[in-house]
Amino acid sequence: MLPAWINERCPSVSMSHREAARARQDQLTKPAGALGRLEALAIDLAGLQQTDRPRAARVPIVIFAGDHGIAAKGVSAYPQEVTIAMMANFAAGGAAISVLARELGSTLEVVDAGTLAEAPMPGIVTDKPRRGSRDFSTDVALDASDVAFALDCGRRAVDRAAASAPDIFIFGEMGIGNTTSASALAAALLGTAADAMTGRGTGLDAAGRANKARIIDAALAHHRIASGAMPEKILSAVGGLEIAAITGAIIAAAQRSIPVLIDGFIVSVATLAATRLNPSCRPYLIFAHRSAEQGHRLVLDALDARPLLDLDLRLGEASGAALALPILRLACALHQGMATFAEAEVPDRDGG
Amino acid sequence: MLPAWINERCPSVSMSHREAARARQDQLTKPAGALGRLEALAIDLAGLQQTDRPRAARVPIVIFAGDHGIAAKGVSAYPQEVTIAMMANFAAGGAAISVLARELGSTLEVVDAGTLAEAPMPGIVTDKPRRGSRDFSTDVALDASDVAFALDCGRRAVDRAAASAPDIFIFGEMGIGNTTSASALAAALLGTAADAMTGRGTGLDAAGRANKARIIDAALAHHRIASGAMPEKILSAVGGLEIAAITGAIIAAAQRSIPVLIDGFIVSVATLAATRLNPSCRPYLIFAHRSAEQGHRLVLDALDARPLLDLDLRLGEASGAALALPILRLACALHQGMATFAEAEVPDRDGG
Repeated sequence: MLPAWINERCPSVSMSHREAARARQDQLTKPAGALGRLEALAIDLAGLQQTDRPRAARVPIVIFAGDHGIAAKGVSAYPQEVTIAMMANFAAGGAAISVLARELGSTLEVVDAGTLAEAPMPGIVTDKPRRGSRDFSTDVALDASDVAFALDCGRRAVDRAAASAPDIFIFGEMGIGNTTSASALAAALLGTAADAMTGRGTGLDAAGRANKARIIDAALAHHRIASGAMPEKILSAVGGLEIAAITGAIIAAAQRSIPVLIDGFIVSVATLAATRLNPSCRPYLIFAHRSAEQGHRLVLDALDARPLLDLDLRLGEASGAALALPILRLACALHQGMATFAEAEVPDRDGG
Repeated sequence: MLPAWINERCPSVSMSHREAARARQDQLTKPAGALGRLEALAIDLAGLQQTDRPRAARVPIVIFAGDHGIAAKGVSAYPQEVTIAMMANFAAGGAAISVLARELGSTLEVVDAGTLAEAPMPGIVTDKPRRGSRDFSTDVALDASDVAFALDCGRRAVDRAAASAPDIFIFGEMGIGNTTSASALAAALLGTAADAMTGRGTGLDAAGRANKARIIDAALAHHRIASGAMPEKILSAVGGLEIAAITGAIIAAAQRSIPVLIDGFIVSVATLAATRLNPSCRPYLIFAHRSAEQGHRLVLDALDARPLLDLDLRLGEASGAALALPILRLACALHQGMATFAEAEVPDRDGG
């Protein structure tokens, strides 16, 4: 059973704020449209945040970590204990996202949404229904109650951060084996063969990638989930706790009218599940980057998303979203800070 | 005659610093290569700046403005007096680049490299050999001595900023009619028909664009400059003072081992001229963005450049370069601030 809140409709975009922002953009001292996607970002944020002053100042980053039973099948280039070691690295400040959060002035919360860790770890929020998912090549990865717990876990993270009045959210993930879970989820949600959706993750060779695709196809057949299956059933069969938590967090953020800057492949798959569960969240999603991971392009196409950056990133842990944040901040600063033609006494094209 | 300094060789990249930076990237707590182009940026900057600590902290922005006789032929959607009005807007803080410079903590110097302004303007450096270029559809745009003056003007701007020990330079331009001059320069430098190189500038319609291309083709035939002409002859025939100043500034910065973050179409054409005059500057160039202006793709291809951003920008005034600066800064922060596998006690793939 899905938690009831999942289906609550996200607030509509404010068309009046969108129109006011568009009108302002047309008066700023530049040729109309010359700031390209930055103009669209400012207008989108104004409509979503229902304000004349779109902002991207307070942007909490929440990383959800989980372990994956499928890792036992050799689908990752890294040993499974890296999940826990990297959680500690996030908290200690040494990971890429730790550095980025510091540079951007963002808070960084790390949530153990389902790793194998046996005890709470310092500096990490523990909020999990079980230690890791089951190996989905032989079992359902998660019980329905685990999926519900994880969706709630995502919402709880949003609730905790809401006290600081965030302008935008960034969610990220860590979990050895989770590109395999994400590829399986995406293949099932989109009705695509695993081969097209499966990449090299953090560093598989060609044989490893082919093996990963075979495991996914076999699992989707075994669990009898094909295109058209309910998203919650797909999450249960081949999902991961951190992925489901991000699905919940995205819906909960959008329900609070808070836009979400979407990271790479795995977060985009969680996003795809979110839009299937609650399509009204879609307007709140801003896509940060196109990952080098093979399946990302297909997932982005399915979401009709055009990301801001394309920098060959394939790290995860919200790093791509963090790298796109300055673009949003500068779009807001330009919207607010530029002079109009009238203020600057610059002749507009009609004045010439 | 070209100034003698133009031909002085730029320092070689430090291969030892490149290799040290590459080795460090491979030890940081991420899969090798997972930060994609950010890793390459940190390695490039380390080699260019000859340091273990690549930096993008101090990044002066210099805007060169000039007027263009060709504007009399109706090649711009805006009246010519906008050049001077926008210079005042830069200095007063209301233009896009003014806002971006503030947000990024960059100094912004505005140089009148050749506008029609009759007297020095407050907050603006006046450094010009003449007021505007001639209409290149009937006359040579600039005398050889004007081109030499403008190249020196660019070097003088670099010399002024050098006292603050810049890590990277950003150069930008303003000048009604200057996409026409830039398209003519690029067509001549690359031996391409004007039609392929000519876009809508700041807002021409289709008929205006076709007219602009016709004017350029006629001028290139009139001045008998085709592929293979000396760059200084091409700059003289159809160039602009602010464009030649940027050419000089790029070479002067590279001669000081200071990388340059290259803006959009017009600055890229100035860059093409710079690499023709002194090919040893090429390693110092980092390309910020792909502009929406039609000819930019051809110029970038000729420079073998792959820009960082593609955000449909077509404003000029260094705005695209400024928007890419945070990527460089975050690349440096990650290079410096991330923990190694050993420091963080995270198992590497070989340890699993």
